[in-house]
Amino acid sequence: MRIACCPGTYDPVTNGHLDIVARAAQVFDGVIVAVLVNPGKQPLFTLEERIAMLKESSAEIPGVEVDSFEGLLVDYARHHGVTAIVKGLRAVSDFDYELQMAQMNYRLAGVETMFMTTNPSYSYLSSSLVKDVARNGGEVSGLVPDPVAARLRERAARG
Amino acid sequence: MRIACCPGTYDPVTNGHLDIVARAAQVFDGVIVAVLVNPGKQPLFTLEERIAMLKESSAEIPGVEVDSFEGLLVDYARHHGVTAIVKGLRAVSDFDYELQMAQMNYRLAGVETMFMTTNPSYSYLSSSLVKDVARNGGEVSGLVPDPVAARLRERAARG
Amino acid sequence: MRIACCPGTYDPVTNGHLDIVARAAQVFDGVIVAVLVNPGKQPLFTLEERIAMLKESSAEIPGVEVDSFEGLLVDYARHHGVTAIVKGLRAVSDFDYELQMAQMNYRLAGVETMFMTTNPSYSYLSSSLVKDVARNGGEVSGLVPDPVAARLRERAARG
Amino acid sequence: MRIACCPGTYDPVTNGHLDIVARAAQVFDGVIVAVLVNPGKQPLFTLEERIAMLKESSAEIPGVEVDSFEGLLVDYARHHGVTAIVKGLRAVSDFDYELQMAQMNYRLAGVETMFMTTNPSYSYLSSSLVKDVARNGGEVSGLVPDPVAARLRERAARG
Amino acid sequence: MRIACCPGTYDPVTNGHLDIVARAAQVFDGVIVAVLVNPGKQPLFTLEERIAMLKESSAEIPGVEVDSFEGLLVDYARHHGVTAIVKGLRAVSDFDYELQMAQMNYRLAGVETMFMTTNPSYSYLSSSLVKDVARNGGEVSGLVPDPVAARLRERAARG
Amino acid sequence: MRIACCPGTYDPVTNGHLDIVARAAQVFDGVIVAVLVNPGKQPLFTLEERIAMLKESSAEIPGVEVDSFEGLLVDYARHHGVTAIVKGLRAVSDFDYELQMAQMNYRLAGVETMFMTTNPSYSYLSSSLVKDVARNGGEVSGLVPDPVAARLRERAARG
Repeated sequence: MRIACCPGTYDPVTNGHLDIVARAAQVFDGVIVAVLVNPGKQPLFTLEERIAMLKESSAEIPGVEVDSFEGLLVDYARHHGVTAIVKGLRAVSDFDYELQMAQMNYRLAGVETMFMTTNPSYSYLSSSLVKDVARNGGEVSGLVPDPVAARLRERAARG
Repeated sequence: MRIACCPGTYDPVTNGHLDIVARAAQVFDGVIVAVLVNPGKQPLFTLEERIAMLKESSAEIPGVEVDSFEGLLVDYARHHGVTAIVKGLRAVSDFDYELQMAQMNYRLAGVETMFMTTNPSYSYLSSSLVKDVARNGGEVSGLVPDPVAARLRERAARG
Repeated sequence: MRIACCPGTYDPVTNGHLDIVARAAQVFDGVIVAVLVNPGKQPLFTLEERIAMLKESSAEIPGVEVDSFEGLLVDYARHHGVTAIVKGLRAVSDFDYELQMAQMNYRLAGVETMFMTTNPSYSYLSSSLVKDVARNGGEVSGLVPDPVAARLRERAARG
Repeated sequence: MRIACCPGTYDPVTNGHLDIVARAAQVFDGVIVAVLVNPGKQPLFTLEERIAMLKESSAEIPGVEVDSFEGLLVDYARHHGVTAIVKGLRAVSDFDYELQMAQMNYRLAGVETMFMTTNPSYSYLSSSLVKDVARNGGEVSGLVPDPVAARLRERAARG
Repeated sequence: MRIACCPGTYDPVTNGHLDIVARAAQVFDGVIVAVLVNPGKQPLFTLEERIAMLKESSAEIPGVEVDSFEGLLVDYARHHGVTAIVKGLRAVSDFDYELQMAQMNYRLAGVETMFMTTNPSYSYLSSSLVKDVARNGGEVSGLVPDPVAARLRERAARG
Repeated sequence: MRIACCPGTYDPVTNGHLDIVARAAQVFDGVIVAVLVNPGKQPLFTLEERIAMLKESSAEIPGVEVDSFEGLLVDYARHHGVTAIVKGLRAVSDFDYELQMAQMNYRLAGVETMFMTTNPSYSYLSSSLVKDVARNGGEVSGLVPDPVAARLRERAARG
């Protein structure tokens, strides 16, 4: 079994994230989407909400499992038999940071990272930009899965 | 009428910003300098001060109007008949972020963004670097318009 | 009259080029597509062919004119009353070179350059990559305008 | 069977290339190292020599096969049941070009590309730099596999 | 006497920092490691701790002195007869920011900045990444000098 | 004696090159400007012309010597007691290549490279762009030293 792990904050998952998960599921036998529990950050959605949105959005992609983790990603990866961490690369500014993380994770635990290029149609998407658009009343359908768009609209309505 | 919109926080306006505004005014029939009201940020200068400094600094440039906006830039742009958003590009790290914003704004509302290259002499300028220099007693004349330099010195003197 | 000039080798024009021309035509009153006559290079298509393909492909875009030039672009721009050179930016490696050219052209003759971001769907397109695909029998429809695809297939068939 | 394909000119193979091949062999069930036959380029080593050096250098890595291809990489990949193209990323300038190729290959044939980060110790290596060093009498052992170093020294001695 | 100044927050010093200091000490007659007192930031280690770790770690490098500074680096540099500020460059994202700072420091006071490339083996290291690894129980020996590793482990144990 | 070496093709020297040489002469005790004899390239100016232009242009900068070299720069550097290679960095695309060369030179022979940031006013200059401008009848004074401008005009007149 060759298992990919797609880690992230997923606050919330976007169509760009989902595209990477779906394509990783083609290359590997299974994909674990691992949501980072980051005590130092204030996410818009709770861990439970983020996991729920990921599960609803990835239900149709065979071989995908959603989980959460705390602490070092490499510890999680080794305990779950992960073959490689898989991440999407959108832009050069991603590249520097992701390269640094990949090299550190390889150094710490021999855990490999593989990068896929984001679908060009989603290259401008990020969770924070999507939240910003939704908070200001912009239309986010087509940018995020439908269950996410619904929750973002709900939040914006609550103000 | 072909109208450019130069959005920003302008906390405070620098000579680099002004150079872009002046050159946009050559290419378009008019330029709206639109100051972002960002409730989540703590600017050094109030909105009123930022607008006042922009008005004083751009008084000699024909066709320039200073305004403020809240919410999505594309909503503002459509309501004011803006032909294109105009931004200066200094460096590669600007480029990735600005590209993302430009593509999102085009996607959300078909609003076009055009980039001009910052005058090389101002390529190292940013509002935050200028504030940092002024706060530590450094000389900022030549980096910002004179009315801005005066206010920065005042603030630094107050501590 | 505010006139944009979109210079290039256009060997051949791609859908990415056409997208920039069409969007420039929305921002400006007219667009001159200026094909560079570069004696030092061996293009796949003759100047006449490149101009013909551009004319066929841009026939439906109002306000577009196709021309050619030799020598300095800034000389051409000044003699034809160009308001601004307009170029598409795809990637960071474009950015450095284009920034250098834009600053040189401003320095030489005060001619302004404005950059638009390439439509994400065309971000991976370049004339040379398209030629490479066609030469090896790959399908280029959807990447270039139909008249260009036809000529590329013809060339590939001839070997 | 999940098969990776590591394409390249390999003129000659360096320790950086080999490191990627070895790590891809950990992630996939097998790796095809595919040497590009590029009629337009003048390699230092013939196709046969390049293949021989790759075979000697990768003999100890289980699951690696060396082959050559002409034409479109995606055609080769589909005919050989390749799951993903695998490439090493060293630097930002690699990134732009590789991103463009990856997106084109996905568009042309749905063939996926996955990137691994080059081992930092080999991040400054390239075939052309190694050839340049060897031609000028510099020491290349440690930069390329031993059989390659021997052949480079031979060539340099012949002048 | 040609004196280099290596400024930074050093919260804490890493093996990448030390490598630059040691190599600067080969090029210049002496090196001042200048720890920034930044009232706006919450470092993990106090100024005294950061200085102590730097002194212990650089004790074997001849010609190195550890000091601290507040305010503008260029003021410090002039008052201490610094010939050039010396910084390590790891990645492109460093480059843009460091270029901006270097040009501002030259403009403010004619103080020169010289960049050295980080040793590839340390190219993925940063103080914040190291702190993150240590806080989550990862092994940091080999990434930071021994006295720093000891203190990071102590902090992690305290939680 | 701390000696910098500024290597290059200098075909021809620009004001950007000269600015780096002059500033290196402030940081080091002496500067060797080392012109690369590259048998594989066709320079516009002969080695003798390039050396002559460098000598005329740098005559007023104390401590500068002009020389030429063939083969590996690190061999030249060691034979001439060079403390560090000094290069100007203009843009990100320079950065990747220069980083690679610097790490290779350090690996081959322990020869250190230090980078200075190009004066922003010259950031868009390169020898090839200047030659292109001159060949097409553009004005190059202010971009290159006067003796170089004169020779470029002469060449352009000859056609």
